[in-house]
Amino acid sequence: MGFLPAHAPAGMRHTDTMASSVNPPRGMRDFLPVEKARRERVLGVIRSVYTSHGFDEIETPVMEDTARLHAGLGGDNEKLGYAIMKRGLGAEELATASDPLALSDLGLRFDLTVPLTRFYASHRAELPTVFRAIQIAPVWRAERPQRGRYRQFVQCDIDIIGESGPLAEVELITATVATLAALGLSGCSIRINDRRLLAAALSALGFASDAHSSAVITIDKLDKIATEGVIAELREREFAVAAVDALETFFARPATLPFPFGVEAITAALPAGVDAALIAELAELGLAVDGDTEIIFEPFLARGMGYYTGTIFEITHPDSAGSLGGGGRYDGMIGRFLGEDVPAAGFSIGFERIVDLVALPTTELPDAVALIYDVDLPPAALLALKTALIAEGRRVRLERRPRNPKPLLAQLAASGYLSVASVTAATTRDSLVFRPVA
Amino acid sequence: MGFLPAHAPAGMRHTDTMASSVNPPRGMRDFLPVEKARRERVLGVIRSVYTSHGFDEIETPVMEDTARLHAGLGGDNEKLGYAIMKRGLGAEELATASDPLALSDLGLRFDLTVPLTRFYASHRAELPTVFRAIQIAPVWRAERPQRGRYRQFVQCDIDIIGESGPLAEVELITATVATLAALGLSGCSIRINDRRLLAAALSALGFASDAHSSAVITIDKLDKIATEGVIAELREREFAVAAVDALETFFARPATLPFPFGVEAITAALPAGVDAALIAELAELGLAVDGDTEIIFEPFLARGMGYYTGTIFEITHPDSAGSLGGGGRYDGMIGRFLGEDVPAAGFSIGFERIVDLVALPTTELPDAVALIYDVDLPPAALLALKTALIAEGRRVRLERRPRNPKPLLAQLAASGYLSVASVTAATTRDSLVFRPVA
Repeated sequence: MGFLPAHAPAGMRHTDTMASSVNPPRGMRDFLPVEKARRERVLGVIRSVYTSHGFDEIETPVMEDTARLHAGLGGDNEKLGYAIMKRGLGAEELATASDPLALSDLGLRFDLTVPLTRFYASHRAELPTVFRAIQIAPVWRAERPQRGRYRQFVQCDIDIIGESGPLAEVELITATVATLAALGLSGCSIRINDRRLLAAALSALGFASDAHSSAVITIDKLDKIATEGVIAELREREFAVAAVDALETFFARPATLPFPFGVEAITAALPAGVDAALIAELAELGLAVDGDTEIIFEPFLARGMGYYTGTIFEITHPDSAGSLGGGGRYDGMIGRFLGEDVPAAGFSIGFERIVDLVALPTTELPDAVALIYDVDLPPAALLALKTALIAEGRRVRLERRPRNPKPLLAQLAASGYLSVASVTAATTRDSLVFRPVA
Repeated sequence: MGFLPAHAPAGMRHTDTMASSVNPPRGMRDFLPVEKARRERVLGVIRSVYTSHGFDEIETPVMEDTARLHAGLGGDNEKLGYAIMKRGLGAEELATASDPLALSDLGLRFDLTVPLTRFYASHRAELPTVFRAIQIAPVWRAERPQRGRYRQFVQCDIDIIGESGPLAEVELITATVATLAALGLSGCSIRINDRRLLAAALSALGFASDAHSSAVITIDKLDKIATEGVIAELREREFAVAAVDALETFFARPATLPFPFGVEAITAALPAGVDAALIAELAELGLAVDGDTEIIFEPFLARGMGYYTGTIFEITHPDSAGSLGGGGRYDGMIGRFLGEDVPAAGFSIGFERIVDLVALPTTELPDAVALIYDVDLPPAALLALKTALIAEGRRVRLERRPRNPKPLLAQLAASGYLSVASVTAATTRDSLVFRPVA
């Protein structure tokens, strides 16, 4: 159902009002009634399941201070941010600015995590000790527009702040799986790893500690370029040859069975010599998640963001090529704003990916009726009828009687108005006769 | 309930991340769970009533092309817009820019009317002949922050495009009055006028046609500076002395009874010589609106926006000093983008004004329960209990057992969790005992 915005070629754009493009800005979308209603229904399900799992919705402004957005927590997304110009800029400020950012004091958020950390630091005293937040809101990234990727898109995040134990991860995963099931997307798999296990595996293979983050950037491309591509890229870069050889040998092993999930499966999937306590921790987490969900340990799952400190996870579904969402533990991040460590973990659903997979009931509205009226009917009589039907719990639309009723009836059916009645000067509530549009 | 954002004095702001302000941007607000839930409930009522009146919700991106935002349709609001910087600006573009707007290609919307006209021009072929739109969304204006005025705020607009007759105004007013009644704000009054009547009245008093718009800017201040202020300001400007004298004499008449609304009341409230057909049109509109609503004809009601072409209206309520919303007919506006005339009228509710007036039921959640658990309990057992309760339709929050339960219980009560149960290793679903938090 999702549609890509139509763009006028740049050369056809005009700057005068009379003839300027009527399209939304590049990479952004308008939503017509049927699609808007569908999106709101899906968001309603998500909100409702998250809420039943004990999470509370909050809201922050769409913009944050430039200094906060560019504090290094957003990774590559920082570069994709929309900057807002200072108001009342004078000619002198313009002439002397050496950097565009000097003309900007605010920017649109590129994710919901940076605003959440700022929100928590601001309102901590008013929030529960363990705070479970829902954020369902648009974010903006000036990415190159492409199919299925937009410059304004909705994220659905849940986060648990203040819980250091695996209960946080278990609640996040359980709530997310329940949400996808409520949307009819059962059969999800959770791919899981722990940043600390990844580091231990890299060390065991011979990668120096200070080369880990750099190697992870390449390893993070496993989904896209496969093991061969990763090894080739690592060889082109400045890593220890023996370590890359060891990784290649490791990749070439017969794949271990990822399921059932447990200490033995994790140990078998890792190079020898990784700390057993870390393995036990991840196995406990896997056990606690509801048994209907397939949990797959992925020893080289990395996830892009630099702020993850422990467990990381992604959710996949047979109907979707990419992941439907992901998250992890980011214990250090909130502390940067508070001057003390606060444990935190979050899980984000990629709303634009799932909204097209979901098959919710159609737009049929059992109570919706259209009144087809003669053009010379006085408004007062018509409104009295409409008001009476609304009072009965109906949704009512007035439509002038057209010469050819076919296009109107098709339009009504498409909007979910499946029942019509004809109104003339003599019509009363009791004499109204409804018939199906089809 | 509304709160003003706390601002750190400018001198106390830091630009490094560690100690930067944790407040939202100036004039913008965070919403904590209780307030967020309240706002969403109020928005839900508004959405639901508008929908039952046959309107359909749409959505547009938060930003529009700069050229469109500055096409002269936004009045003073255009100057308050947030401009978005072009991406990838180079040093040369910065150095040679003479005007800040040259560095901006997009801006945040300052109202929902400009985006609606662009949306309609883009999607007309896919929309009903008479299109009834709901837009419930934030807008941004960089106004001087003051009590009750914010830089990001929500507007609730309904518009009817394609209906030239008074039925449009009647449906808009009826739906708006019904919405306010559903929110418990019954007893609204509608102040109504017609731009064409206003022009006729000014002509009858001796104002030259080309001085009307200029005079209306001052007359629009009647609410703030009263008749004396308006006359004094008009005298300081370049209007015909005889016309201002005539207006002063007119203002000094004994006030006419505004109700009941009808041809005679309108005629009596206007200077002699105004076109009777126009008066009859407004009287018909007044008659068609549901009899429970007080309709007051205000001969000098002007409303600020320049795009109104016919009926204009404002809604007042005894509990609010200012108007709760307003609207009118703007037949010329959509034609500017389409090259042909399309009739249109709209009504906007000032959400931030009404949300504080509304007394919806409290945050009590009958199904919400908190499980107070021992810290050494395994996550799996706890999650199994939580999942079982959610399956029964409950909203469940897990809380670690604190040494002193009082602050936790108070926090739970404030969040609407009024029922708690204690969980130990021996607890099963059947042995859970709920007790009230109070």
